[in-house]
Amino acid sequence: MSGALPPLVGDGPDAPMSDCVLSSRVRLARNLIGFNFVNRSTHDQLSDIVHHVQSARLGGPFDSGTRWVNVQATAAVDRLMLFERNLISRPFVEATHPRCVAISGDESTSVMVNEEDHLRLQMLAPGMQLRALCDRMTALDTSIERSIEYAFHPRFGYLTACTTNLGTGIRVSAMLHLPALALVQELERVQRSAKELHLAIRGFHGEGTEALGDFYQVSNQTTLGRSERDIVEEFAGSVLPQFVEYERAARRVLIERDPAALDDRVHRALGILRSCRLLSLDEAIKFLSRLRLGVALRRIDGIELALVNRLLLEVQPAHLSRATGAPLGNGRDDRGPRADLVRNALR
Amino acid sequence: MSGALPPLVGDGPDAPMSDCVLSSRVRLARNLIGFNFVNRSTHDQLSDIVHHVQSARLGGPFDSGTRWVNVQATAAVDRLMLFERNLISRPFVEATHPRCVAISGDESTSVMVNEEDHLRLQMLAPGMQLRALCDRMTALDTSIERSIEYAFHPRFGYLTACTTNLGTGIRVSAMLHLPALALVQELERVQRSAKELHLAIRGFHGEGTEALGDFYQVSNQTTLGRSERDIVEEFAGSVLPQFVEYERAARRVLIERDPAALDDRVHRALGILRSCRLLSLDEAIKFLSRLRLGVALRRIDGIELALVNRLLLEVQPAHLSRATGAPLGNGRDDRGPRADLVRNALR
Repeated sequence: MSGALPPLVGDGPDAPMSDCVLSSRVRLARNLIGFNFVNRSTHDQLSDIVHHVQSARLGGPFDSGTRWVNVQATAAVDRLMLFERNLISRPFVEATHPRCVAISGDESTSVMVNEEDHLRLQMLAPGMQLRALCDRMTALDTSIERSIEYAFHPRFGYLTACTTNLGTGIRVSAMLHLPALALVQELERVQRSAKELHLAIRGFHGEGTEALGDFYQVSNQTTLGRSERDIVEEFAGSVLPQFVEYERAARRVLIERDPAALDDRVHRALGILRSCRLLSLDEAIKFLSRLRLGVALRRIDGIELALVNRLLLEVQPAHLSRATGAPLGNGRDDRGPRADLVRNALR
Repeated sequence: MSGALPPLVGDGPDAPMSDCVLSSRVRLARNLIGFNFVNRSTHDQLSDIVHHVQSARLGGPFDSGTRWVNVQATAAVDRLMLFERNLISRPFVEATHPRCVAISGDESTSVMVNEEDHLRLQMLAPGMQLRALCDRMTALDTSIERSIEYAFHPRFGYLTACTTNLGTGIRVSAMLHLPALALVQELERVQRSAKELHLAIRGFHGEGTEALGDFYQVSNQTTLGRSERDIVEEFAGSVLPQFVEYERAARRVLIERDPAALDDRVHRALGILRSCRLLSLDEAIKFLSRLRLGVALRRIDGIELALVNRLLLEVQPAHLSRATGAPLGNGRDDRGPRADLVRNALR
């Protein structure tokens, strides 16, 4: 089936809703039959699970160029780098038990083994491509099920370690960029309505992180009692487009109300990014967010959305450390290399 | 005597102490014999004084190209422009009585007629050139005295409307640029020592104005009982160089302690000035001050000190209004034209 799937749109202005949606993501929680849940397993049992999954044929995007990463044996900076690329979760970075991740050649897809569940399948795409991701995920899920037997209950559906994932085990999310809603002070209202819709709103790096630079990860919270298709359709077909429309309306307000103030804001951000000699992570995200708004609204020429998106990744601590040799995890000492990287990229 | 005077040094890095001294100024307060002081004169008497002075030969820098400005008949924006160029005082801008000012062709010298005293002679030069200014002022004073008889008392010296000017009637001042002292938090200590030396410290536009952008006008406060020469020698030979040395020491501390923070600060200022679309006067002075520090310390290439000094003048409301047609005295509406002016000048 996966051979029939149309390709995902690459990063840049052509990605759907790329003006307001940085990326979209689908993940499935699955567990293997015949093994304890991860939190009930011994070290040896977890190793068994790793071997079991690694010997299976995953199929789909994993058919070529797949990289298996033994996370337990991976340096902290590289674990963090995988996290920054959204290929593994924060708990997966910090755990100490046997675990691994399969990463497809195009990095669109990963399978974490021994995260909260035995398997966490995850697919990412730039912009708003949840339906396409869901189709792919269904194909991958089917493919994996050919060589791995999932724990499934006829009434509850897929069994998961946490009841919030029980049923379909699906979580769909999108990283939204909502700077205009923040500027016109409508963000709180939107956040309230999201809560009424039982959506989770999180910061730049998921659970427990702050909304740096007005980036918000929005996701569904419940998966029980509904089909995957329903969940994705509601989220991708109704909820997310509504958020995007709110943001676009706020952007129109900014342009109509005070275009000079908008231009000043976005051009100053570019000016600072092009001239700074020290740049903290928070500042980088803040000014890249403003720049992204300017580029998306075509108030700034000569800079591509894809470049801004790439920089949002490259300014992260582990990426920065790997690219420049900057010390990792020291908030002060990485500011110089980060400034150099951004300045050179935007020159 | 004035023919023998060497020329003043023009604006830029060659002006003495130009790294820390924006400009220096000497002014004399003089009154005419046979006329009431200005605050005791009627409208007609003030007109008589104006005519009396205008019919005299001032000599010196007024021998060619002199412009007589009837301030009473001058538009508000042009009065303010003269003030911004330091050619007339703030009270002289706002007064309504008969008054005029003679401005030498090179704009180094002006004579206000009917300011607080009948005559206020004033000479300006870039950087620290107080001794040269004083020589010129003595020559001009002598020249004017050939056609105008001053009110002079053998014991008190030159009689002035306010006792603080009695005696020599001289005031010497310099506009200092002290950003590093502010950054290393030594400015208060320096200000205290200035007060102990009976110096007045004022903001960017003299009495009652705030120290925008770390520019401080420092001047002597008493003139009675000492010769002009003594006052100038102490100020130009000892007090001011000490201030400049404090500031230079603070700049060395900044470079040694954290050169990247310094570079970040001055380059960001340039980045903002080069990219802004709205710029308030306060912000303009703030960022031009930082830029000036960077240029003076050669942390920034390709920008001349004279350009920064010129912009510090051109961003002022009246200059901006005359150059761009921006509305005068509206803090919001002149931000766009100011940003355009600065951006284009620094491109």
